[in-house]
Amino acid sequence: KPQNERQRLPVVPQGIERDDFVKALGELGEQLGAEHVEVNDKPLRDGWYMEHPNTHDMMTILDEEEFVASAIVYPGSTEEVQQVVNWANKHRIPVFPISMGRNLGYGGAAPRVRGSVTVDLGRRMNKILDINAEDYTCLVEPGVTFYALYEALKERGLDEHMWIDTPDIGGGSVIGNTVDRGVGYTPYGDHWACHSGLEVVLPTGELIRTGMGALPGNNTWQTFPYGFGPYSDGIFSQSNFGIVIKMGMTLMPNPGGHESFMYTFPNEEDLAPLMEIIRPLRISNILENAAQVRHVTQHIAVRGLPRSTFYSGPGPVPASTIHAAAAQTPVGDHTWAYYGMAYGPPHIRSHKLTLIDSEFKRIPGAKRIDPSTLPADEYFWSRDRIARGVPDIHELRWVNWASNGAHIAFSPVSPIRGRDASKLFALGRRLHDRYGLDFFPAFIVGLREMHLIVEIVFDRADPERKAAALSCLRDLVEEAAREGYGEYRTHLVLMDQVAGTYAWNDGALMKFNQRLKDALDPNGILAPGRCGIWPKRYRGRGWEM
Amino acid sequence: KPQNERQRLPVVPQGIERDDFVKALGELGEQLGAEHVEVNDKPLRDGWYMEHPNTHDMMTILDEEEFVASAIVYPGSTEEVQQVVNWANKHRIPVFPISMGRNLGYGGAAPRVRGSVTVDLGRRMNKILDINAEDYTCLVEPGVTFYALYEALKERGLDEHMWIDTPDIGGGSVIGNTVDRGVGYTPYGDHWACHSGLEVVLPTGELIRTGMGALPGNNTWQTFPYGFGPYSDGIFSQSNFGIVIKMGMTLMPNPGGHESFMYTFPNEEDLAPLMEIIRPLRISNILENAAQVRHVTQHIAVRGLPRSTFYSGPGPVPASTIHAAAAQTPVGDHTWAYYGMAYGPPHIRSHKLTLIDSEFKRIPGAKRIDPSTLPADEYFWSRDRIARGVPDIHELRWVNWASNGAHIAFSPVSPIRGRDASKLFALGRRLHDRYGLDFFPAFIVGLREMHLIVEIVFDRADPERKAAALSCLRDLVEEAAREGYGEYRTHLVLMDQVAGTYAWNDGALMKFNQRLKDALDPNGILAPGRCGIWPKRYRGRGWEM
Ligand SMILES: Cc1cc2nc3c(=O)[nH]c(=O)nc-3n(C[C@H](O)[C@H](O)[C@H](O)COP(=O)(O)OP(=O)(O)OC[C@H]3O[C@@H](n4cnc5c(N)ncnc54)[C@H](O)[C@@H]3O)c2cc1C
Ligand SMILES: Cc1cc2nc3c(=O)[nH]c(=O)nc-3n(C[C@H](O)[C@H](O)[C@H](O)COP(=O)(O)OP(=O)(O)OC[C@H]3O[C@@H](n4cnc5c(N)ncnc54)[C@H](O)[C@@H]3O)c2cc1C
Repeated sequence: KPQNERQRLPVVPQGIERDDFVKALGELGEQLGAEHVEVNDKPLRDGWYMEHPNTHDMMTILDEEEFVASAIVYPGSTEEVQQVVNWANKHRIPVFPISMGRNLGYGGAAPRVRGSVTVDLGRRMNKILDINAEDYTCLVEPGVTFYALYEALKERGLDEHMWIDTPDIGGGSVIGNTVDRGVGYTPYGDHWACHSGLEVVLPTGELIRTGMGALPGNNTWQTFPYGFGPYSDGIFSQSNFGIVIKMGMTLMPNPGGHESFMYTFPNEEDLAPLMEIIRPLRISNILENAAQVRHVTQHIAVRGLPRSTFYSGPGPVPASTIHAAAAQTPVGDHTWAYYGMAYGPPHIRSHKLTLIDSEFKRIPGAKRIDPSTLPADEYFWSRDRIARGVPDIHELRWVNWASNGAHIAFSPVSPIRGRDASKLFALGRRLHDRYGLDFFPAFIVGLREMHLIVEIVFDRADPERKAAALSCLRDLVEEAAREGYGEYRTHLVLMDQVAGTYAWNDGALMKFNQRLKDALDPNGILAPGRCGIWPKRYRGRGWEM
Repeated sequence: KPQNERQRLPVVPQGIERDDFVKALGELGEQLGAEHVEVNDKPLRDGWYMEHPNTHDMMTILDEEEFVASAIVYPGSTEEVQQVVNWANKHRIPVFPISMGRNLGYGGAAPRVRGSVTVDLGRRMNKILDINAEDYTCLVEPGVTFYALYEALKERGLDEHMWIDTPDIGGGSVIGNTVDRGVGYTPYGDHWACHSGLEVVLPTGELIRTGMGALPGNNTWQTFPYGFGPYSDGIFSQSNFGIVIKMGMTLMPNPGGHESFMYTFPNEEDLAPLMEIIRPLRISNILENAAQVRHVTQHIAVRGLPRSTFYSGPGPVPASTIHAAAAQTPVGDHTWAYYGMAYGPPHIRSHKLTLIDSEFKRIPGAKRIDPSTLPADEYFWSRDRIARGVPDIHELRWVNWASNGAHIAFSPVSPIRGRDASKLFALGRRLHDRYGLDFFPAFIVGLREMHLIVEIVFDRADPERKAAALSCLRDLVEEAAREGYGEYRTHLVLMDQVAGTYAWNDGALMKFNQRLKDALDPNGILAPGRCGIWPKRYRGRGWEM
């Protein structure tokens, strides 16, 4: 994408004069050290995944100046996070915390409100405070990535003893991913369910520990999540009620063996019967990790070549072209691919694998792919690593599908049912066709529900394609909601719309969230608008989009 | 216990005149129907477990007039619950919701504040709204007991297809037990972790649905717990922030086989090495359900005979007497007994059972008890039923240990470690000895932590023994907290003390809870004092105990 060389003044948050803002930043610099307060006045650089910017969304679907920080601050301790929050309250300046800021597809490092001061926690608060090999737990700060945690286990010789659980790409932070309720692919994939204990700076500056952490001298903070009294951790996920500065996480004991498997299914219509087969197997834990059912278009895209290699016409790449390309790959032609892993010693695994094989083979044309036929750089091996908790970034390759590739996700929750899968697939296909977009569906089967993950890959330098992608997303959200499907997580640009679909009983849940927000953050300084929750000072003033 | 024949006026809640109170009740009677508003002016009858009173704590450790309701109301619908709440706000009358009111050991049906109006939800709101055999979920109202849910599965021919998870006694409600974060003994034992979706009447009368329930027309309320935005369910557990009137619960697929096993260990000192053996087995799910390690005194007491059968002297029954009695039982003499179940088809079970056997046998004198040697009414078979989700009440038998038997629980959370188990055991023994009480410890190993459950059984008719039991409990809570152990749940009488132990950073968590309480319940009408959370109107006025 053409470099933006615009020399720019920093955006100033609304409601404060430029001079006052500069003075206020100076004041904060005196507390944190001037080198830890950075004004965002240079040209915005997108970088790439490993060197991502913290000034804006490097994959923005709007104008890149839309979700942009006025300044970035780097607190180095609990007290400094509290100082930032107190400062924000004093000057009524919106602050937006990020851990690593690699929330790509959902907004990256960007704040929801233009001109917010980004609180980049990860830069200086990145210690692994504890790893407990007896309890299989750890305690981390915001800057600890899945890679860093994995490396720490290796350094201590514990990586064979216990596993981490990583999302498809490992450069994000354990805390950032978990508070956004992200998922991974070992049997511990539900990160929120696996955490134990938080330390949180409240929007008014107080510091709390949840769970057993509230008991002085306790030794169960990372082993018993609930503590005594209201279990409040949940309100700090997907919200703007607090800044999480420490989190406990459970780790998975080495199951004593593991074995990846892959099946392909020839036809689009195989999706429905496949889901009916998956549901009971997944709920009864024969399928032990989150199941991925991926469409062949993903299979082609994740090979890392741009779509122009295959097709240069307008509109989506024709199915025949995709299938022809698939036929050339080691996996061979197919429409759906299932990736999974069986865990435990050989005779335990074979019990499960035999069951799975006989069930999957009920679909005519189902094929078990022999891993020994797959070359080392085949995507299968990336899934294999991830399913045993080894961080990876292979998944990033499909971002190359478009030139200046960026992506944004649509992730509705659905029952694990053939008819729902077919309905969502048809809906996605119809709307992608309407906007001339390639359709990249993957179904991720959690335990009793699945998320459809649709990644729209677009050219960041092409305003028309960005507009088409955004229109497609808005239609997807709206039409899916009409059928009873809601998103489990979303991009900054869609937060108001998605929150608006959770409107039962005249928006009672949002009113409840607003009541909590106003009680905990009376000045409305913390991440206003995140997940659609606007503090009083912002409500009814046209901030929603 | 001698019948209390006192003719009594109903207690009137503080801050309202008797006449106004009577008028207010009349007003409520017009809305709910006079037959659904009951004044508590008759003698208090304790009844027994299956016919428990909803007027007071049938196992009270204080004077029975202490935790007592002024009236009981029986709403029959969501709207009626809202009417009760609105009425309470209008008249500033404290209301206390119960589902079944069988929270024995933790306060039974009693309200924390004397003279509260008890909202008995279970009487009329007791429908199973949904059972979904494909998703393995159900949706229940407050009056649905574990027994009722189990019977419903049987009626529909689904009890072989899927299992419920029941606490040791099955007469409680699924909702009441779960919101108090109770536990059961199949692999689904952590009830809170297994629920999905709440419908809640807020203290100000609004009605919300959490999770996917907030999306109109959704079909994933019981399958995906989180929804979008802050996950607020947790703040409705162990709290006084709302009245839960519907809850989704997941059910366990039949694992394809099950097999109970029991081991005994001869010496008190075996506890520490046993815990070291259990921890890795439990965390890696070789031990699949919450492990129970019970002391021989429990083994004798649960046979249902009063302690006077064995011993009539003062102070605790001597160890030699207990062991002599144990030697006469089918299980034989021992100090610790482990009860567990293995799940799955035979060859899967045998893999686990073999591992367990070789590990447990590392303790000299460890003995595997052959179930075929145990008669049908042996306690083992009650554990066997419970571990496969069949409700039971055998466990109640140890309440007979004292005449007019009642009990109250001390349940601290601990790491699964030999040294912690020994420390807690020694602490309990020392304090029980101090007060001349029999010591009934059982360790329940959750997953990464264990709860010690100490049940103090006392004679309800003996004020001196009640006072001793209470003093013992208060010392237990205090001394345990000093060593870093906090309770996971507690009786009404101990709530302030226990909440007070979670005092990190100058009581920051309690201040946070109070902030939420005041925001959600500005008039302080809902269950004031529950879990130590007092609304503004009550704070600093001597309500704590
Ligand atoms: C190719 C690709 C594949 C992906 N696959 C997955 C996947 O499999 N699973 C998955 O879950 N995600 C996936 N993602 C999304 C994303 O990359 C990860 O979730 C990533 O871990 C999130 O980035 P982060 O950890 O740096 O979070 P951050 O960007 O630091 O945080 C995310 C958001 O959470 C909030 N937040 C962060 N830290 C705090 C805090 N300390 N206190 C309060 N609020 C905070 C902020 O609002 C922030 O915007 C994928 C992305 C890409 C590009
Ligand atoms: C011998 C014995 C063994 C036991 N074993 C176990 C065990 O293994 N596991 C275990 O967990 N417990 C155990 N218990 C404790 C208790 O019996 C159960 O937890 C029982 O299920 C609780 O009673 P209930 O469901 O009727 O709850 P209730 O008494 O109805 O509720 C408990 C409390 O929760 C709150 N509450 C109830 N309903 C609502 C609502 N709808 N909205 C908001 N708040 C509400 C109220 O404050 C109420 O006091 C045992 C008790 C005994 C006597």
